[in-house]
Amino acid sequence: MLRLQKKMSNKAGLSPGTLVHIGEKKADRVRLSLISYDGARLQEKEIGSVDEVPTERDGKTVTWLNVDGLHDIAAIEAVGRCFGLHPLVMEDIVNTGQRPKAEDHDAYLYLVVRMLSYDVEAHRVVSEQLSVVLGNGYILSFQERRGDVFEPVRERIRKGKGALRKSGADYLAYALLDAVVDHYFVILEHLNARVEDLEEELLGDPSPDTLKAIHAIKKEILAFHRQVWPLRDMMVQLKKGEFVHISKATRLFFQDVSDHTVRALETAESLRDSLNSLQDLYLSILSNRMNAVMKVLTIIATLFIPLTFIAGIYGMNFVHMPELSWKWGYPAVWAVMITVAAGLLVYFKKNRWL
Amino acid sequence: MLRLQKKMSNKAGLSPGTLVHIGEKKADRVRLSLISYDGARLQEKEIGSVDEVPTERDGKTVTWLNVDGLHDIAAIEAVGRCFGLHPLVMEDIVNTGQRPKAEDHDAYLYLVVRMLSYDVEAHRVVSEQLSVVLGNGYILSFQERRGDVFEPVRERIRKGKGALRKSGADYLAYALLDAVVDHYFVILEHLNARVEDLEEELLGDPSPDTLKAIHAIKKEILAFHRQVWPLRDMMVQLKKGEFVHISKATRLFFQDVSDHTVRALETAESLRDSLNSLQDLYLSILSNRMNAVMKVLTIIATLFIPLTFIAGIYGMNFVHMPELSWKWGYPAVWAVMITVAAGLLVYFKKNRWL
Amino acid sequence: MLRLQKKMSNKAGLSPGTLVHIGEKKADRVRLSLISYDGARLQEKEIGSVDEVPTERDGKTVTWLNVDGLHDIAAIEAVGRCFGLHPLVMEDIVNTGQRPKAEDHDAYLYLVVRMLSYDVEAHRVVSEQLSVVLGNGYILSFQERRGDVFEPVRERIRKGKGALRKSGADYLAYALLDAVVDHYFVILEHLNARVEDLEEELLGDPSPDTLKAIHAIKKEILAFHRQVWPLRDMMVQLKKGEFVHISKATRLFFQDVSDHTVRALETAESLRDSLNSLQDLYLSILSNRMNAVMKVLTIIATLFIPLTFIAGIYGMNFVHMPELSWKWGYPAVWAVMITVAAGLLVYFKKNRWL
Amino acid sequence: MLRLQKKMSNKAGLSPGTLVHIGEKKADRVRLSLISYDGARLQEKEIGSVDEVPTERDGKTVTWLNVDGLHDIAAIEAVGRCFGLHPLVMEDIVNTGQRPKAEDHDAYLYLVVRMLSYDVEAHRVVSEQLSVVLGNGYILSFQERRGDVFEPVRERIRKGKGALRKSGADYLAYALLDAVVDHYFVILEHLNARVEDLEEELLGDPSPDTLKAIHAIKKEILAFHRQVWPLRDMMVQLKKGEFVHISKATRLFFQDVSDHTVRALETAESLRDSLNSLQDLYLSILSNRMNAVMKVLTIIATLFIPLTFIAGIYGMNFVHMPELSWKWGYPAVWAVMITVAAGLLVYFKKNRWL
Amino acid sequence: MLRLQKKMSNKAGLSPGTLVHIGEKKADRVRLSLISYDGARLQEKEIGSVDEVPTERDGKTVTWLNVDGLHDIAAIEAVGRCFGLHPLVMEDIVNTGQRPKAEDHDAYLYLVVRMLSYDVEAHRVVSEQLSVVLGNGYILSFQERRGDVFEPVRERIRKGKGALRKSGADYLAYALLDAVVDHYFVILEHLNARVEDLEEELLGDPSPDTLKAIHAIKKEILAFHRQVWPLRDMMVQLKKGEFVHISKATRLFFQDVSDHTVRALETAESLRDSLNSLQDLYLSILSNRMNAVMKVLTIIATLFIPLTFIAGIYGMNFVHMPELSWKWGYPAVWAVMITVAAGLLVYFKKNRWL
Ligand SMILES: [Mg+2]
Ligand SMILES: [Mg+2]
Ligand SMILES: [Mg+2]
Ligand SMILES: [Mg+2]
Ligand SMILES: [Mg+2]
Ligand SMILES: [Mg+2]
Ligand SMILES: [Mg+2]
Ligand SMILES: [Mg+2]
Ligand SMILES: [Mg+2]
Ligand SMILES: [Mg+2]
Ligand SMILES: [Mg+2]
Ligand SMILES: [Mg+2]
Ligand SMILES: [Mg+2]
Ligand SMILES: [Mg+2]
Ligand SMILES: [Mg+2]
Ligand SMILES: [Mg+2]
Ligand SMILES: [Mg+2]
Ligand SMILES: [Mg+2]
Ligand SMILES: [Mg+2]
Ligand SMILES: [Mg+2]
Ligand SMILES: [Mg+2]
Ligand SMILES: [Mg+2]
Ligand SMILES: [Mg+2]
Ligand SMILES: [Mg+2]
Ligand SMILES: [Mg+2]
Ligand SMILES: [Mg+2]
Ligand SMILES: [Mg+2]
Ligand SMILES: [Mg+2]
Ligand SMILES: [Mg+2]
Ligand SMILES: [Mg+2]
Ligand SMILES: [Mg+2]
Repeated sequence: MLRLQKKMSNKAGLSPGTLVHIGEKKADRVRLSLISYDGARLQEKEIGSVDEVPTERDGKTVTWLNVDGLHDIAAIEAVGRCFGLHPLVMEDIVNTGQRPKAEDHDAYLYLVVRMLSYDVEAHRVVSEQLSVVLGNGYILSFQERRGDVFEPVRERIRKGKGALRKSGADYLAYALLDAVVDHYFVILEHLNARVEDLEEELLGDPSPDTLKAIHAIKKEILAFHRQVWPLRDMMVQLKKGEFVHISKATRLFFQDVSDHTVRALETAESLRDSLNSLQDLYLSILSNRMNAVMKVLTIIATLFIPLTFIAGIYGMNFVHMPELSWKWGYPAVWAVMITVAAGLLVYFKKNRWL
Repeated sequence: MLRLQKKMSNKAGLSPGTLVHIGEKKADRVRLSLISYDGARLQEKEIGSVDEVPTERDGKTVTWLNVDGLHDIAAIEAVGRCFGLHPLVMEDIVNTGQRPKAEDHDAYLYLVVRMLSYDVEAHRVVSEQLSVVLGNGYILSFQERRGDVFEPVRERIRKGKGALRKSGADYLAYALLDAVVDHYFVILEHLNARVEDLEEELLGDPSPDTLKAIHAIKKEILAFHRQVWPLRDMMVQLKKGEFVHISKATRLFFQDVSDHTVRALETAESLRDSLNSLQDLYLSILSNRMNAVMKVLTIIATLFIPLTFIAGIYGMNFVHMPELSWKWGYPAVWAVMITVAAGLLVYFKKNRWL
Repeated sequence: MLRLQKKMSNKAGLSPGTLVHIGEKKADRVRLSLISYDGARLQEKEIGSVDEVPTERDGKTVTWLNVDGLHDIAAIEAVGRCFGLHPLVMEDIVNTGQRPKAEDHDAYLYLVVRMLSYDVEAHRVVSEQLSVVLGNGYILSFQERRGDVFEPVRERIRKGKGALRKSGADYLAYALLDAVVDHYFVILEHLNARVEDLEEELLGDPSPDTLKAIHAIKKEILAFHRQVWPLRDMMVQLKKGEFVHISKATRLFFQDVSDHTVRALETAESLRDSLNSLQDLYLSILSNRMNAVMKVLTIIATLFIPLTFIAGIYGMNFVHMPELSWKWGYPAVWAVMITVAAGLLVYFKKNRWL
Repeated sequence: MLRLQKKMSNKAGLSPGTLVHIGEKKADRVRLSLISYDGARLQEKEIGSVDEVPTERDGKTVTWLNVDGLHDIAAIEAVGRCFGLHPLVMEDIVNTGQRPKAEDHDAYLYLVVRMLSYDVEAHRVVSEQLSVVLGNGYILSFQERRGDVFEPVRERIRKGKGALRKSGADYLAYALLDAVVDHYFVILEHLNARVEDLEEELLGDPSPDTLKAIHAIKKEILAFHRQVWPLRDMMVQLKKGEFVHISKATRLFFQDVSDHTVRALETAESLRDSLNSLQDLYLSILSNRMNAVMKVLTIIATLFIPLTFIAGIYGMNFVHMPELSWKWGYPAVWAVMITVAAGLLVYFKKNRWL
Repeated sequence: MLRLQKKMSNKAGLSPGTLVHIGEKKADRVRLSLISYDGARLQEKEIGSVDEVPTERDGKTVTWLNVDGLHDIAAIEAVGRCFGLHPLVMEDIVNTGQRPKAEDHDAYLYLVVRMLSYDVEAHRVVSEQLSVVLGNGYILSFQERRGDVFEPVRERIRKGKGALRKSGADYLAYALLDAVVDHYFVILEHLNARVEDLEEELLGDPSPDTLKAIHAIKKEILAFHRQVWPLRDMMVQLKKGEFVHISKATRLFFQDVSDHTVRALETAESLRDSLNSLQDLYLSILSNRMNAVMKVLTIIATLFIPLTFIAGIYGMNFVHMPELSWKWGYPAVWAVMITVAAGLLVYFKKNRWL
């Protein structure tokens, strides 16, 4: 979204379903991890090829195949063929930079969301495309690189507590989306902390770098907002029951994720408003300071320039300058100068410059 | 909302219904207060545990259980179990920072609103999450800390005047929401007073602190607006009759609360517009003042710098400077100076600087 | 609306229908004026109490009871009781500061609008709440103080020309609203005249007071807009036939009032846009002027400061300064000075400062 | 709209249908022009009174009565009576300043649009109200003054080519509206040319008059937009088939006018955006220039003020100033001065001022 | 759109279907290229006249006639007659500058979109109107000049791989629109690169030309946005199945184009926001720099002006100036000067100017 996928143009005009990986190569090898469970049994292993996925489904077992790395087109295509994915879906999976959306393909539901993390060093929101395919008894998840926000979910599966082991694949889909959205608040806390730091810096002792940092963090907040914004509509679809793959019982949980999405967006908007207001304030403070500086300059210059002129007059070397030899000439000049200075000070007072 | 719940991230990825209190611990002990009444009888007491709440409902008695303090997860869970609340509802109750919303859970209606108060010292809007569960003959209300805006409602119950004692639990829910929304106007009066004070200060004798105070009060107004804004949609749902727990007779009263909510929002918007317009005005005034200061400096400098230069010329000590020994040299220099000054003054007049 | 009702907080938490007059006491005594007419007969009188209103309605006579002054709760309550008004309606009548709205209460239609006038001295829009109750054969109108925009309507009733005497109470309601909205254009003409005056002043010879006056008039325009804006929706309800108290024939007339309301709003918006654009222009002009001032200062200072330095050099009193006794020293210094000055002037020309 | 009808207030409170001409008297005499045609015959003449219009309609002949000048209330009323127009329609016809709208009055369709022209001298958009009544077999058109954009339409009627002579009155209504909207692009070309001229001027050699001209042209563009904006909704009504007076075949043509209306609006919006962006750019350029000017001043002043001070020191006339009689005093002072100047220049370089 | 079609006014008031080419003449000769294929056969040739197009359709063969150049009205009219196009469609084809839209004409579907390219030298988005007529078994495409983004599509037809050769004319229409929208991302990459270059320049070493270049690129981005924006609605129509000429299977592909359109728009919006934020940042940096410059000037001037005045005093030539002959006069003056300077430096420190 905000950060344009740079190789997007490579795909222009190609046939739909021509798989070209758009995005940086973020993993060295595609990794397939399989978790398969029902209320009683649980199996978790890394597999070498999609052929190892059991194809028979008993209606109770939930199979979750997670794919890390999208650059190996052949491996991804094998997964797609195995689960009968539409060429356009395959295209979207490898073509990172999709907007969040939910697409109903009868045999399965295709979901794309942005999985975000925060680079604390660079103060940047790092974005990864997460594709989730929710079919009858199985979940496929595709990530650009290893590492995700699903560890607590895997832990809940392993421990078998809560509703997860007793529910279907749609509930697992909820659990994944919930983990993604919950993590947005982690990002927001980082952004918020950064904004507060910069606010303090700007109102305290700002440098040009502070301004650039504010510009940069605003860009991050806008990027966050743009990547989460389409999720709002998608969540409405999910909770309203548009899709048969999501049972009525699970819909209520999507309502909860929907609420959290809206809160995340509103928090981002409020951070952006805060920054805008802060920048306006800073401009006013700058103007104010400039005013103060100008006043000092003006007062000093206005006070001494005329006096210096008078002194200059009597520093002239004309032979015929009667004042120079007057007895009270020098004190008289001092008197004139003090009068002028006093007059100016009164004028400044009147204009509230002092 | 505006103020990000700082511990939100603790919950990321947890199972729904895992109760983790998100928010500051604002009370030392959970307190349960029970009021139960019908047209004839009234009972009001503090109870030690939710087991003391009578579970049989005769269809006429209204039971109001108010809970102050959300940090004691066990106590809250006991209340939830006793009244059969859904895990997601329990989660929202203890996870403060929810957007206002109304959720129909068949057996009861779950309402969340922001109960606001104003810290006059710090000029801050203080926000507390109020959860209201409206069931068949009972009301549960959950607050973050002791102290609320319901004292007039309790007084009306005690005195037995008006419709309250003769009506059902839905009317009590209305009375509570009405008290919350009525109190918004108290907040707005404080904010308005503060805005007027700052307006006076800014147009009179502003300091950099005035600017920061305006920035701060704008933040408060935006926070107010963001916390009340979702209430607008919620009130439309309540007054339109979407929920069976609210009788037709009571809906008209929710229409009234809805009107007041919109008025509160519009007042907040107008305060914000006022501040924005004020800041623009202040920037113009600053520019204007700078202009005035610059003009004075320019006039004085432009007038005297050439004159001082002339004086400097005849302060040089060259041996061969014929003018110095001219008889009318000194008066001639004065004449030249006066001519130059007069010329400049005419030029300034022409440019409307004087 | 814009101007917060200052005593609003007094009502917080009270039972609905508890009548507390919110607003300034704007009349010394409540006055009840009764006009009752049909095609043939006309009666107009001031009455002492609501008991003098004839309660029997023959289906043809239209009874218009106008109440001036809302502070006497007892008198208002008597009227409400006599006509069977709902407690919430009573509350809204005395609680000035309502948004314009239309409420259907089966037995009658309750309308609230803002009746505006313009204080030419203070350049302020003065607002008064007008409540109209349209029942079967009668109209009640409640005003905060004496004086209104209905004199032409009363005149039409008295003269018996036009459709008014031949039509029902709904047509009288239309005539009253039409008079209110027609008067908005009188306000807009005043505001427009004021804006044009200020525009002239700002572009001609502005003072800081001009800026403050523009700020003030913008506030008035925003206040006007906010008070008229909700009328737009209300008029759509009235013209669309949502209410049984308005006959189909009369609806077309409400369409006309609706058109005028929209025009009034758009005129206000265009005045506001004008002011905004004007302020932006003024800021540019200020910057421009500052630039011009700075240039003059810079040219003069840059020209003379180096020359004055040279003169200063040869004003030093060192014993060993060979130049001083050179024969052509003085003319040579002049030559150097003229060269420097000419060089600077060329530089200024090149930079387009001259 | 933008330009408030100044005499609007004269009508406040009057009975609907009381005809008061609101607007400037723009024609000296009302002129009635009649064109009546079918596929075979064509009659075109100026008539003295509306009585000369043939009242019998054969279902094939189209009668177009054009009225120029609205100040003669009696003549307009005669036309209205003859064609059975509703009092509110009559009122709107003479009360110029209506928003564009389409009103279905069963027997006829009443359309109001703004007919615009461009005053090339004053760079102003000149607006005239055009009312069109489309009845069964006839068209009435009312203009404020003589001169319109319909000459090409009349020519097409006279020549009998194209669909016009073979179609009904609804097609003539389309042809008139199409001519009006087509002419908007003529206006836009003038506005565009003016904007481009001013852009060139502003970025080249701007004067305060350039700024005022930009302010003025922005006002014109906003006025254009406001007057065309409501046409958008009206065109949607016309093309969607809401009105029985417009045949299905003709609706497609209104779709075309609708497209052009939207394009005209978007062009106006883009002109406005261009101007705004241009003004922002100009402010930046001004700030930039000011910066450049200030730097020159600061460099010169900062360089010479300390040097002049040093020269001033040794221009003092103290009897006991040992330096003055040193042999190398004068060269030493020069050395000090050159060192100071060089140091400052290095400092300026380091700060990138040079 | 953004760039007003300059000859638009030539058409004002003409009969619909009067073909007047609006736009620059961008090709010297109209060229007709014919591609016709089914799963098995493929024919591709340039034809001299539209009469060479085979008129019989077997329901399987897809015929694509591409027309380059719109200035030869006669040739375009021949095509229109041959395929039975409506006069309004003909008018829109030659009248370049249409908004993107889809019009259902029963026998065919008429689509207009903007085909964009990027002029790398001038940093401008170049726009061409592409009209596509999708009929039963045929596609007509009209371009303003030779050269387009369809080469990959032609290649796919020639190679016979993918779905194109096996699908109908609606799929070819999809392939063309997809190629157009895919190319938008090429434009966006160019715009993005330009924005990043300018950002670097502005924050590094900006010149007034940088500002003008930013103004120019903003205009291009707005132009891009305006030309793509209406495509969004059009795509919704196409994917929702409003048109019978698009089969259900193809609709899913239009959903994909729709997604990409939205992404292109959002990317353009984010580029625009980036530029705006950058300009704001630059203004702040300018203000900051001005402040720094002013401080230096003020410090130097404020420090030396009083000292120079003191030196001026003792440079006066009064006969009676007792200080001049004091033994410690000169050192005393130095002491005074150093005290004054030190006092000022302390004052500056206190005000944080140093
Ligand atoms: Mg493609
Ligand atoms: Mg990952
Ligand atoms: Mg969650
Ligand atoms: Mg968006
Ligand atoms: Mg602002
Ligand atoms: Mg969770
Ligand atoms: Mg929740
Ligand atoms: Mg509390
Ligand atoms: Mg209330
Ligand atoms: Mg919001
Ligand atoms: Mg009320
Ligand atoms: Mg501003
Ligand atoms: Mg109340
Ligand atoms: Mg009154
Ligand atoms: Mg009216
Ligand atoms: Mg509003
Ligand atoms: Mg009217
Ligand atoms: Mg502004
Ligand atoms: Mg009227
Ligand atoms: Mg005319
Ligand atoms: Mg046209
Ligand atoms: Mg508008
Ligand atoms: Mg067209
Ligand atoms: Mg701006
Ligand atoms: Mg035309
Ligand atoms: Mg081409
Ligand atoms: Mg594509
Ligand atoms: Mg648009
Ligand atoms: Mg795609
Ligand atoms: Mg801005
Ligand atoms: Mg600004």
